[in-house]
Amino acid sequence: MQRILSSQLTAHVGATVRLAGWVHRRRLLKSVAFLVLRDAAGLAQVVVAAPDVRAQVEALTEETVVEVVGTVVANPTAPAGVEVVEPTVRPLGPPAVPPPFDLYRPALTASLPTQLDHASTALRHPTRSAALRISAAAVAGFRATLDRQRFVEVHTPKVVGSSTESGANVFALDWFGRPAYLAQSPQFYKQLMVGVFERVYEVGPVFRAEPHDTVRHLAQYTSLDVELGFVTDHRDVMAVLRETLAGMFAGVAERAGGALDTLGVTLPAVPAEIPAVHFTEALKIAGAPADEPDLAPAHERALGEWARAEHGSDFLFVTGYPMAKRPFYTHPDPARPTHSNGFDLLFRGMELVTGGQRLHRHADYLAALAARGEPVEPYAGYVDAFRHGMPPHGGFAIGLERFVARLTGAANVREVTAFPRDLHRLTP
Amino acid sequence: MQRILSSQLTAHVGATVRLAGWVHRRRLLKSVAFLVLRDAAGLAQVVVAAPDVRAQVEALTEETVVEVVGTVVANPTAPAGVEVVEPTVRPLGPPAVPPPFDLYRPALTASLPTQLDHASTALRHPTRSAALRISAAAVAGFRATLDRQRFVEVHTPKVVGSSTESGANVFALDWFGRPAYLAQSPQFYKQLMVGVFERVYEVGPVFRAEPHDTVRHLAQYTSLDVELGFVTDHRDVMAVLRETLAGMFAGVAERAGGALDTLGVTLPAVPAEIPAVHFTEALKIAGAPADEPDLAPAHERALGEWARAEHGSDFLFVTGYPMAKRPFYTHPDPARPTHSNGFDLLFRGMELVTGGQRLHRHADYLAALAARGEPVEPYAGYVDAFRHGMPPHGGFAIGLERFVARLTGAANVREVTAFPRDLHRLTP
Repeated sequence: MQRILSSQLTAHVGATVRLAGWVHRRRLLKSVAFLVLRDAAGLAQVVVAAPDVRAQVEALTEETVVEVVGTVVANPTAPAGVEVVEPTVRPLGPPAVPPPFDLYRPALTASLPTQLDHASTALRHPTRSAALRISAAAVAGFRATLDRQRFVEVHTPKVVGSSTESGANVFALDWFGRPAYLAQSPQFYKQLMVGVFERVYEVGPVFRAEPHDTVRHLAQYTSLDVELGFVTDHRDVMAVLRETLAGMFAGVAERAGGALDTLGVTLPAVPAEIPAVHFTEALKIAGAPADEPDLAPAHERALGEWARAEHGSDFLFVTGYPMAKRPFYTHPDPARPTHSNGFDLLFRGMELVTGGQRLHRHADYLAALAARGEPVEPYAGYVDAFRHGMPPHGGFAIGLERFVARLTGAANVREVTAFPRDLHRLTP
Repeated sequence: MQRILSSQLTAHVGATVRLAGWVHRRRLLKSVAFLVLRDAAGLAQVVVAAPDVRAQVEALTEETVVEVVGTVVANPTAPAGVEVVEPTVRPLGPPAVPPPFDLYRPALTASLPTQLDHASTALRHPTRSAALRISAAAVAGFRATLDRQRFVEVHTPKVVGSSTESGANVFALDWFGRPAYLAQSPQFYKQLMVGVFERVYEVGPVFRAEPHDTVRHLAQYTSLDVELGFVTDHRDVMAVLRETLAGMFAGVAERAGGALDTLGVTLPAVPAEIPAVHFTEALKIAGAPADEPDLAPAHERALGEWARAEHGSDFLFVTGYPMAKRPFYTHPDPARPTHSNGFDLLFRGMELVTGGQRLHRHADYLAALAARGEPVEPYAGYVDAFRHGMPPHGGFAIGLERFVARLTGAANVREVTAFPRDLHRLTP
């Protein structure tokens, strides 16, 4: 007999079925016992009356993996409107040792460190697994949107020969006796691949030896990277980002509706055109001094409130960040070269995405490095490529865990990461 | 005027259009000059008659990025049946320095090391980019097939606290002052996630400090990992692998037909049921001694010929490999415990995929490690998870670069890798 899932029970009323999953909970009443079975689709209520089966269920521990064969009956008072009666129960493994928290309670009451120490069981809780389902659905929406717009997926090296981008915060390793570093981003490679495919994306791990212990930082996270050529300026990049975000939310709605319900999350509407303000205007709106070189978190929150009040939007682009605060490969605003063609996207008053137009002329790279007093040599393989014809281009990167945390309202990015890596955590 | 792609010219005969791309080649005849423009979709022939534009084109170098505005006319003698006449040409950057090989020739004549040294331009050659398009399409097919079968995509740590699986061949790194290692596979994590989602997959980088300099080995490659719970044995895993492979080829057919034509590749048919032979039978077929513990490449070739002759199949499963040659987490064949419920899939006489059923009982892990004289401690976080209820499960892993190399007939896996990493190569 083919196994069915708990969600398929309603289609099998009157039939004998086979279920399999985990003993989620047992309730031993005087006249009857309930075994709540959890599988990938949800929960199934199994009603046990026969004394021998009841004795068996009494001896089972929570999280033991079992197979149940029984008859499906409609019961309006059962949680899903159906239940399984007259079951036989067969363990598929030895009795489980229950984890140090109750998975059957509505919320996990254990502290986050305890949950992370016991990730393989904590992630079984519906609130934790729902976040990961939303994550997978968002990435599927990301890819689908870009595939439709003729982007090509690439896979680039995660180990590089020189510590670029920011000298600090890199992990060093021994590469067959030579020094090497974990890649902090696929930035350079995705730009080079614009010369091959015009439009590329990558979903992959990036590594930051982040010495700060905060609720927002991980030492490994999943970066959703996009880069496209033949742009006029950063506004073409912002238009693709708008489509990509809308596609990610559509992916979540389509593939993870149950997970949204579990977490009580409503998806935001992405405006057809996301409002945009220039950095200098943003400082005024936030009430910040005109010579501030960057936006502080309090400024971002003020801008988020303004976008909601003025434009009814959860999203706001801030464009024209000062060049001094952006990486050397950032393209300046030709009309105002102290400011950049770089942007941030704020979501509910917090920075979610960074992007912009990049330099595309070899001479501009040499000048940009010279202006910062940086040598060309560590960047040679990257900078040289721009001698061979590169179109105007730009792109952006979305941190997947931050995206999911902000969407679900998780206070700590670790709540939406299966096995986080940080300053303190290298296991499990 | 909106830019169009070279592939859209036939739909615009009689109209004025804007193209943009790279100067692929120029042919300067006495009466007329041809500029062949390359964009992401292919090539466009631009006919230059006006003396001033001709002088401009004569001064252009190959690989310079330009924009062309002109009129589309049908011409049966033009390569695509259409060409662009009376053009204006506007460079979008400075004149390009041509790469050290001609990208317009049918084949790249430079040696593979030269190509890899100049990857950002060599990958622009249609034969090199075609392989990467096939790669992206195969991964899209992989995901689509598994998504349909309710697998959930996961992202797992690439840095781990202990060097497991095989003590050798790991890259060591400094993790905030503590020793750590690059993950050789997501094996343990994908198994743990079976306890959460029942069925999971991951597409991500894996790292092997492979000291051998061969055409088949990379120090970083992209692993397509699958794991599923509630299996009866390895045959359920093989059935999913069969569907996955068929889906990967379907993805390539659907999304990368042009790339297949470029490389002259015909997709193999995946039989509805891939033939399978037991390891002991495979030794007989290959003419190997009955006490051989593994299949040598020559044996695999003989088996490939046998599968083609006997079953008309490019694919052959070999099951029941001796336990001694499989990892400690491999599930033995209950009827014959010296042999495993592990399998390899041969494609045209070469191993393409390894998989099998895994142990799922905590006590079995302890016994398996003890039998190999290995301590439990380095595996504690992994092995402990099996105390909390894990279903019978199994899975497989496909090396993406090997898959594409075997499909396209590439002699060296580096030919189908954008920026390979190996014993010698850490740049670009």
